[in-house]
Amino acid sequence: MITMEKNILLTIAYDGSVFHGWQRQPAARTVQGHLEQTLSRLLKRDIILNGTSRTDAGVHAYGQRASFKADIGIPVEKMAMVFNNALCGREDGAFAGAPVRIVKAEEMPPEFHARFDCKGKKYIYKICRGQQDVFLRNYRYFVKDELDVAAMNEAASYLIGTHDFKCFEASGSNPRETTVRTIFDAKVIDGDSIELHISGDGFLYNMVRIITGTLVEVGLGKRKPGDIKTIIESKDRTKAGHTAPPYGLYLAEVYYE
Amino acid sequence: MITMEKNILLTIAYDGSVFHGWQRQPAARTVQGHLEQTLSRLLKRDIILNGTSRTDAGVHAYGQRASFKADIGIPVEKMAMVFNNALCGREDGAFAGAPVRIVKAEEMPPEFHARFDCKGKKYIYKICRGQQDVFLRNYRYFVKDELDVAAMNEAASYLIGTHDFKCFEASGSNPRETTVRTIFDAKVIDGDSIELHISGDGFLYNMVRIITGTLVEVGLGKRKPGDIKTIIESKDRTKAGHTAPPYGLYLAEVYYE
Repeated sequence: MITMEKNILLTIAYDGSVFHGWQRQPAARTVQGHLEQTLSRLLKRDIILNGTSRTDAGVHAYGQRASFKADIGIPVEKMAMVFNNALCGREDGAFAGAPVRIVKAEEMPPEFHARFDCKGKKYIYKICRGQQDVFLRNYRYFVKDELDVAAMNEAASYLIGTHDFKCFEASGSNPRETTVRTIFDAKVIDGDSIELHISGDGFLYNMVRIITGTLVEVGLGKRKPGDIKTIIESKDRTKAGHTAPPYGLYLAEVYYE
Repeated sequence: MITMEKNILLTIAYDGSVFHGWQRQPAARTVQGHLEQTLSRLLKRDIILNGTSRTDAGVHAYGQRASFKADIGIPVEKMAMVFNNALCGREDGAFAGAPVRIVKAEEMPPEFHARFDCKGKKYIYKICRGQQDVFLRNYRYFVKDELDVAAMNEAASYLIGTHDFKCFEASGSNPRETTVRTIFDAKVIDGDSIELHISGDGFLYNMVRIITGTLVEVGLGKRKPGDIKTIIESKDRTKAGHTAPPYGLYLAEVYYE
C-alpha cells in the first residue's frame, strides 16, 4: 500500500504577548492550539504538532519548530504561504496581521521528530534601560538604573561549557534525570537594547530567565562577574538572582544535525 | 475666595492597538476613558479630560495632549510619576508596563484649553516593505511590493501650503465650515521603515491615512508624483487613493503658541 503521508517541519515566529504559552490548553489561547485548529480546518483532518519548546506565556519566538505528519497534496514550497493565508484570514493590508507566522515549511524523512531530534537551541533575552516605552512593554525587560554591560558579558562567559546548572532551575520543577547541560556560547551585546545571546544543548525550566536576572544584578553592581562560578558550584537556586520576566525572552533558533 | 485649582496639560503616549480610540465610550476601553477613570480614582474627584485629537481605534500617540482642571495638592513636577504609578499598578519590573504613559505634566494659565489653543499637529505614518512581521503587525502598514520612496517624497512636497484638501477627507464626514488647511511640512523618509512626517494647522477626518494611501500608490508606480496637484484641485475623494490602515499612524506632536 502506497502512502502519500509527508513529515513536515515548520519554523514558526510568534508574538507571545497574546498567547498563554505554546502548549495546547482546553480553555486558553495557546500557539499550539491556535496552529492546530487552523491547520486542521485548512487540511480537513486532525493535525497534532510536536513542538520543540513549551514556551511560557509571554515568551516570543523567531524560530520555534514543530513537526507533523499528514497526507496532504500542497507542494512543500507553497505550504508556508498557504498556511499563513489561513492564519491571517486575509492579506489585503487593511488588517493587522496574525500574531503567529510560518517562516518556513520543509519536508523531512519519515523518522524525523522536531523535539527528539533537537540538538540544541538559541535564546535571546532583550533588556532596555530607563523608562518604560508603551510600544515595547511586551517585548523588553525595562531596568531603570544604569547597567554595566561589560561586567554582564564577563559574567556570561562563565556559563560556557558543561556544568550542573541546578542553581538556574526554577525551584519546584519536576525532577529530571540530570541538570547537567552544555552551553555552547553566551554573550551580552550592547545596542538599542542590551541582548543576552545564549545557545546550548538544552535548558532547564526558567533557566534563561534566572540567568538573565542574575546577570542584571551583576550589571547593577550587586554581584561581581566571578560570582557566577560560585553560584554554579552551589547548585542552589537561592544563591542565584531573580527570575527576569517572560516578555523579554525570544526562542531564536533550534538546532538539528 | 482663594481657589487652589490648577489647569494641568498632559503629554500622553499610547499604544493604540489595545484601545478603541481616544474618545470616551460607555462600553469600550478607550484612552480617554481609561485615563479619566484612573485619575478620578487617584485624585478622588471626577476628572474630565479635554483631548486635542480624537484618534481612531488602532492609532498610536507619542504626544497626544489633554488638559484638565482640578484642585490637587501634588506638585506639578511629580505628577507624571504619580500618574504613571497609578496607570501601571506597580513598577517592579515583573509586570509588562501600561499601554498608556504620561510623558509630561505641566501647569498652564487658567484660560488655557488643550484643544481650542492648539495651533497645529504633526503626524508620522510608518510603512514596512515586504512580509508581515509578527512583532510589528500592530505598528506598521506592510506593503508587499517595492516602493519608490523618492517619488513618494516628491508627491508629498505638493501637499505643502494652504489648499482645499476636500479630496483627502473621508466621504460621509460631518460637514465643516471649511476644508482648507495649511500643511507646514510633508516629507517621506527612508530607513528601517518608510515614514511620512506631516505637520499642519489641522487635519480633516482620515486625511493622513488617505494621503498615505495615495502616496503608496505613487510609490508602487500606479500614479505619478505630480498627480497630487490634480487630485487636490479636483476636491473629489474618489480621485485620491485608498485609506491606509489605522495602525501605521502616530500622533507625534501638538503645537501651541
